[in-house]
Amino acid sequence: MRNLTLLTDLYEITMGQGYFNEGRHEKLAVFDVFFRPNKLITYSVAAGMEQVADYLENLHFTEDDIAYLRSLGCFSEEYLAYLAGLRFTGDVTSVEEGEMVFPYEPILTVKAPMIQAQLVETAILTFVNHQTLIATKAAKIVDAAGGGVMEFGLRRAQGADAGIYGARAAMIGGCVGTSNVYAGKLFSVPVSGTMAHSWVMDFENELEAFRAYARSFPDNCLLLVDTYDTLRSGVPNAIQVFKELRQRGYEGKGIRLDSGDLAYLSKRARKMLDEAGFENAIICASGDLDEYSIASLKEQGAKIDSWGVGTKLITSADLPALGGVYKLAAVFEGDKEIPKIKLSDTTEKITNPGEKEVYRIYDRATGKAIADYIVRAGEHIDESAPLELFHPVETWKRMTIENFTARNLRSPLIAGGKRTRTSEPLSTYSERFKKEKSRFWEEYTRRDMPHIYKVDLSPALFALKADMVCRGKGK
Amino acid sequence: MRNLTLLTDLYEITMGQGYFNEGRHEKLAVFDVFFRPNKLITYSVAAGMEQVADYLENLHFTEDDIAYLRSLGCFSEEYLAYLAGLRFTGDVTSVEEGEMVFPYEPILTVKAPMIQAQLVETAILTFVNHQTLIATKAAKIVDAAGGGVMEFGLRRAQGADAGIYGARAAMIGGCVGTSNVYAGKLFSVPVSGTMAHSWVMDFENELEAFRAYARSFPDNCLLLVDTYDTLRSGVPNAIQVFKELRQRGYEGKGIRLDSGDLAYLSKRARKMLDEAGFENAIICASGDLDEYSIASLKEQGAKIDSWGVGTKLITSADLPALGGVYKLAAVFEGDKEIPKIKLSDTTEKITNPGEKEVYRIYDRATGKAIADYIVRAGEHIDESAPLELFHPVETWKRMTIENFTARNLRSPLIAGGKRTRTSEPLSTYSERFKKEKSRFWEEYTRRDMPHIYKVDLSPALFALKADMVCRGKGK
Repeated sequence: MRNLTLLTDLYEITMGQGYFNEGRHEKLAVFDVFFRPNKLITYSVAAGMEQVADYLENLHFTEDDIAYLRSLGCFSEEYLAYLAGLRFTGDVTSVEEGEMVFPYEPILTVKAPMIQAQLVETAILTFVNHQTLIATKAAKIVDAAGGGVMEFGLRRAQGADAGIYGARAAMIGGCVGTSNVYAGKLFSVPVSGTMAHSWVMDFENELEAFRAYARSFPDNCLLLVDTYDTLRSGVPNAIQVFKELRQRGYEGKGIRLDSGDLAYLSKRARKMLDEAGFENAIICASGDLDEYSIASLKEQGAKIDSWGVGTKLITSADLPALGGVYKLAAVFEGDKEIPKIKLSDTTEKITNPGEKEVYRIYDRATGKAIADYIVRAGEHIDESAPLELFHPVETWKRMTIENFTARNLRSPLIAGGKRTRTSEPLSTYSERFKKEKSRFWEEYTRRDMPHIYKVDLSPALFALKADMVCRGKGK
Repeated sequence: MRNLTLLTDLYEITMGQGYFNEGRHEKLAVFDVFFRPNKLITYSVAAGMEQVADYLENLHFTEDDIAYLRSLGCFSEEYLAYLAGLRFTGDVTSVEEGEMVFPYEPILTVKAPMIQAQLVETAILTFVNHQTLIATKAAKIVDAAGGGVMEFGLRRAQGADAGIYGARAAMIGGCVGTSNVYAGKLFSVPVSGTMAHSWVMDFENELEAFRAYARSFPDNCLLLVDTYDTLRSGVPNAIQVFKELRQRGYEGKGIRLDSGDLAYLSKRARKMLDEAGFENAIICASGDLDEYSIASLKEQGAKIDSWGVGTKLITSADLPALGGVYKLAAVFEGDKEIPKIKLSDTTEKITNPGEKEVYRIYDRATGKAIADYIVRAGEHIDESAPLELFHPVETWKRMTIENFTARNLRSPLIAGGKRTRTSEPLSTYSERFKKEKSRFWEEYTRRDMPHIYKVDLSPALFALKADMVCRGKGK
């Protein structure tokens, strides 16, 4: 495993020196990871917690790292010696991978000595921001396609990790496979891919190229038909080769369209394949796809069974960063919690102070989610009594619910520096998401202009926040 | 070094099996990396060649990799045995890092046995696409700022590599430093960073937080002033601490603004600092910046000395993928080159066939670049004779130039599988770019509606292409 301990912003290490000098470095601190709303995301699919756990368990500066930090000329020898022995000894609570999450909710909380909690900020954000972003984008694309989405983006990914962990996240979001062999091996997920245009171009002509491919892969013969002319050359040649295969006792798998008008071409190709007796041959499509183009193609009756989605999935092209933040929520003086708040002139940017928990409230009658509910740590939710929910800013918007169940969305990921959660196959995470999504009214998950799902605060948390805001700006 | 041999699309390995079965796997093939125009990029800054070289020199399947491929159940034992012994033995020619490059130019060419050339497609594209993208975005941001840009994006990067190699590329594009400590160590580039809001929030009040920081870093005291109220609290407290520092014989370094209206706040803060006698204290700004917002802030007279640019730089937010492609240009039968072309109904998507070289033509009188000129490999350019350039599609657009020099943009990167180019400090690459950019009329590098720089074909290359297109669609 790569040692990513230096994968941090310098200011984390600079502040560490300051905390160390001031004797504040081992005081317990609580930081929350959460993200703010934006117009392109209505819900998110949490991912990356496993990489957070790997990173934290492995956290240590090598001798080389310390020598490098020394070379910067701004750290004391006492501090460097301290860093050399530093390990992550704190606790991390988080949602599970594949959990549906919403703005403002602490999806991951670090409780650790200040110096550790500060040091790990950057890498935790990098892992969680990236994978949650791609899992969410994948979920939107899969939702539009209705399934059958393959992740094909490696060559356009922002570096190797973006390809590898992007493929991982895409699987959590509901993709059925990836073209990325490295990711296939690392995460035991299905890989797929047959031929590129270069294969077809290498042969004398397209028919010979298809025949050669059929010789090597008679039982997995998916032919790329758009190298020269899809309908006049590609599809007829594919049909010819499928006929020859059938004489040998094999069935051609199908064709892939990678350019041109995919609605028109797929409908025409479907008709040609059907008329030739290849009703079971599938049609795969690729080429600059995303949830919008897929929805639009389907609306026009495109006959596409499988979608290869690359660039716009692996980069989340219309929103290439989730913007998750890591904010101080509390420090401890001995056992005493001192809640902390970040104020802002923008109301939505004021943080929720103190240690918290997040519950999802479901209607017992329908099983559907009603709202998420953030409480102060240790608050009890009485499922037998009515619960009044109110909007955290427009507080006159209120509703009382009865006959509900409440589920704590978070659980320990790391305790005392050691992982407490077992690693599951990615299919467990994607199933979790799929199942949870079915518990949301579709109004909340609609691509365009969805109804905004409520994320409310308990009266106790609201009171604490209001008090801290009113007590002035904390100066 | 991580073994990234499996970092490829499955179809590369599937095609490999086909080439192997057909006895075509060791035939020499030539593939070009190039990108197509798009409205957001007028020129690009090439980067990532060093990672390509590292990857190719290290290419080998481990026993584990072979076992994994075997488990997929679609490869023969003969082929797997061949893969187990496979190394990259080919040649790679490319531009240098930091070179200014334009659409359609082969910025990197692989000439290798077909099976190798195909296998390495995906990873080469990943490295070159990513780093060239970020170096280009950095160049645009640095151009708007006029210098003093720090890369601050790690937490929003698409995974660890996007942060690390994105920082590398940003330095090549002209950033003066990064917050990313890992990248700082790996590439020996300046790192910077002082404090986050959490530092200020951890103390009783802002003044105490600033004083504590000044105690630890009296000679590098840059204070984040927007935690509570920039002008009523942050800047006055910073001035107070700078006064205390001066009594101890130190000068405060400056302040950082991270929210609010940066034009207004920077002008007010500058005035306050100047009036208090801290004319040398710098003002750093950060917060959702890119080339557009920086240009706009400068237009309004913002008093900002240093720019910390994060999300929009490290993800190239308005264009998160460069879209570079890897296209077959030729195969060899013995010593005989068989040029290959990819046709398309979209004229701009038709590839340039055969082995090629790229020259940049400079006006000898002004030293300025006139056009890039793609020729067939081995063509001689006679600098003593007039050269007629013509548009590669609108061929009636012609100009004749005299008194020019021609520079071959490319040189060997790998020969016979071994690196031939020495690794240079990143500053060499950023200097190369800076110097080359000065050889372009500013019309070509303007952010909005630039004049399009010419990339033309030699008559010989044009004739070959026209002939291959006319001979029909190559079927």
